[in-house]
Amino acid sequence: MTQKTWRVGVAGLGTVGGGLLQFLAERPDFAPAGDRAVVTAVSARSRSRPRTVDISSLVWFDDPVALAASPEIDIFVELVGGSDGPAKAAVETALKAGKPVVTANKALIAEHGAELAALAEAAGVPLLFEAAVMGGTPAVKMLREAMVGDDVDGVAGILNGTCNFILSEMEATGRSFAEVLREAQAMGYAEADPTMDVGGFDAGHKITILAALAFGCAPNFAAAEIEGIGAVELLDIKLAKDLGYRIKLVASASRTADGVAVTVHPSLTPLSHPLAQAGGALNALFIEGRRIGRIFIQGPGAGAGPTAAAAAADIADVMTGASRPVFQAPAGALKPFISVDPSRSVGKAYLRIMVRDEPGAIAAISETLAECGVSIDSFLQKPVEGAGGVPIVLVTHATPESTLLDAISRIEKLQAVLERPRLLRVARI
Amino acid sequence: MTQKTWRVGVAGLGTVGGGLLQFLAERPDFAPAGDRAVVTAVSARSRSRPRTVDISSLVWFDDPVALAASPEIDIFVELVGGSDGPAKAAVETALKAGKPVVTANKALIAEHGAELAALAEAAGVPLLFEAAVMGGTPAVKMLREAMVGDDVDGVAGILNGTCNFILSEMEATGRSFAEVLREAQAMGYAEADPTMDVGGFDAGHKITILAALAFGCAPNFAAAEIEGIGAVELLDIKLAKDLGYRIKLVASASRTADGVAVTVHPSLTPLSHPLAQAGGALNALFIEGRRIGRIFIQGPGAGAGPTAAAAAADIADVMTGASRPVFQAPAGALKPFISVDPSRSVGKAYLRIMVRDEPGAIAAISETLAECGVSIDSFLQKPVEGAGGVPIVLVTHATPESTLLDAISRIEKLQAVLERPRLLRVARI
Repeated sequence: MTQKTWRVGVAGLGTVGGGLLQFLAERPDFAPAGDRAVVTAVSARSRSRPRTVDISSLVWFDDPVALAASPEIDIFVELVGGSDGPAKAAVETALKAGKPVVTANKALIAEHGAELAALAEAAGVPLLFEAAVMGGTPAVKMLREAMVGDDVDGVAGILNGTCNFILSEMEATGRSFAEVLREAQAMGYAEADPTMDVGGFDAGHKITILAALAFGCAPNFAAAEIEGIGAVELLDIKLAKDLGYRIKLVASASRTADGVAVTVHPSLTPLSHPLAQAGGALNALFIEGRRIGRIFIQGPGAGAGPTAAAAAADIADVMTGASRPVFQAPAGALKPFISVDPSRSVGKAYLRIMVRDEPGAIAAISETLAECGVSIDSFLQKPVEGAGGVPIVLVTHATPESTLLDAISRIEKLQAVLERPRLLRVARI
Repeated sequence: MTQKTWRVGVAGLGTVGGGLLQFLAERPDFAPAGDRAVVTAVSARSRSRPRTVDISSLVWFDDPVALAASPEIDIFVELVGGSDGPAKAAVETALKAGKPVVTANKALIAEHGAELAALAEAAGVPLLFEAAVMGGTPAVKMLREAMVGDDVDGVAGILNGTCNFILSEMEATGRSFAEVLREAQAMGYAEADPTMDVGGFDAGHKITILAALAFGCAPNFAAAEIEGIGAVELLDIKLAKDLGYRIKLVASASRTADGVAVTVHPSLTPLSHPLAQAGGALNALFIEGRRIGRIFIQGPGAGAGPTAAAAAADIADVMTGASRPVFQAPAGALKPFISVDPSRSVGKAYLRIMVRDEPGAIAAISETLAECGVSIDSFLQKPVEGAGGVPIVLVTHATPESTLLDAISRIEKLQAVLERPRLLRVARI
């Protein structure tokens, strides 16, 4: 077998791009499948910015789209980011030119994955995005390749390290969301504009991609039901713990008779559960296969090393010449993503109800819950200093969401109740 | 793209073979990579034995080697088992005939992997064995494919479900190894001859394979240091728990400056550690990558469903046309497996010393340990009914194995000591 050298063009030299160049500089003989991969051309916002790797010998492109179109590269690596704009234009250009594409861009794949898969498959080239989900932990490869011998019924996990860090820190230090977020920003764990992370959108992009891989449906980010952690209060973290739970941002995708439900919610996880124990910036995922049973994977979800390693593994995969659909089914055969009406979902829930410290509050609340058909699994009343009222918290048995919302509206109107009750889901894991 | 049909020949119709036929019967359109796979020929010990899947329409071979050689199949699946004999002959025959091979045979790959890899690579066909390790949990794919963008420093985990079940049951029920083994045999969790499992050899085969994948060295089962669970006493399970540990059969492979150490030992794992929490027949594995950090995977390690799913995923991989080395480096470039002298290994250890209940025993033991240079991390003396003496248990700080063995020999000779102290390693995880 004669050794071929694949010329790799990298667009975007931020954390992941820098990490990838660093890795390939440390491994000039990178040839895990026989052929060799060498970065020959790059594109980034600034040519002159100081970098850990010398790029002066590489061909420079101001425009990532021009790099993608260049006949001087054999693989295009897109690390620009963003669901549209230059990233999308560059990936489309590379695929149309018949070049394999490796990307870490979760927004792009979650929002335009089906059309890009069609382009890739028409050109007969791979479109790989291991680095888009869970960094160096190969969730994408597991679902796309290892689970084809089974039917996946659901996946659920922690997919955003920033949120996981913030929630862990709030619990550990007893500080508020706003305080911990500021600290995370100062440490570089959270971006200046943290909306993508703390709003749950990043996790939403990732679980949308995993749902498409797991169920062979077209990724449909717009159908995902997303709630971030911005409204998670320290009080709920403490009270949930008293009830035996830890609040995590849980992303979940499940297949039901009616369709696919993709959700991101701050959710209660039992303290002894592996998801509850994945602390700091870790990512963790359960995959439920009908024949295989439950597989659990956990690892660092971000950072230069892990994410660049995932992109390098994708480059290796390109060089094996493997031909398979982008999303477990060919783009033309992807099922439409039929989302389930969230109000029909059924699960256990946590309610925190702030009441005036006066007799009869518990009776009125329990009566209302009983009238609505909500039955209670556990219950806690505990005075909390400075909470502006007494919190009554309870975890329900499995209840339809519509029933819960009805009960919440009725409880809110009770004389003793100070504000709209806080609802959090108990993760179905 | 026109769809090709790959004719699959399956040798061995036991648990895994039966599960694979069942899966492909349920999925007559199994074509995850575009092409279709259909079982057309089989071989097994008995043609007439009752089976869940009707094999009357399939071509029958009495001899698996004849099936492997048949021009009527395109992929050969070896599920016969055994490191030598018909399994090896059949796999060699298939590879020499230029047929891709899928196998679940850990003994074959651990003992003859390098020569089989050379045959496969000479013929330019894949030799895949995902089902050999951790059943449906893709440990092999992770190490072979996902970790190529990193350097793996070590892997450690629980790779034998039977031993894990027995140890979990001993702890839960307070029964002896022999009693629980008999129950496991009656339930079909352990074989009539349990040596491969409880002797640690099955885990040894698996960790040998993972070491080869992780470090790009030729698998060398003979170099693995293997200790089974047959000598694990209930007393040690209880005392270890008092010290904050759970005893697990831990298989481990690590790379040091001197070479590669591959070991299987009943080992103490901290109760809060994920490996300690993997109960029942679960398998679990840590992979330590220099850039990626720690990845953890866990899932069912055996059974028809998971193992057949792994074999089906391998069949899908064959159909992608991917070309990559069997063990992360081409067979000709595999590094020799240089095993590390176990006496040079350094780690924490658990010692149980049975003494006569008389003054001075602790003083004599502590003095001997101090003389040998063994320092103590935790210490427990606890009367145990019917133990024939008083057990003194201690966990040392990290100590070279040679020093420990020296200390054990000296302690054994002390007047108050009733028998040779029991040594168990604390897992380096």
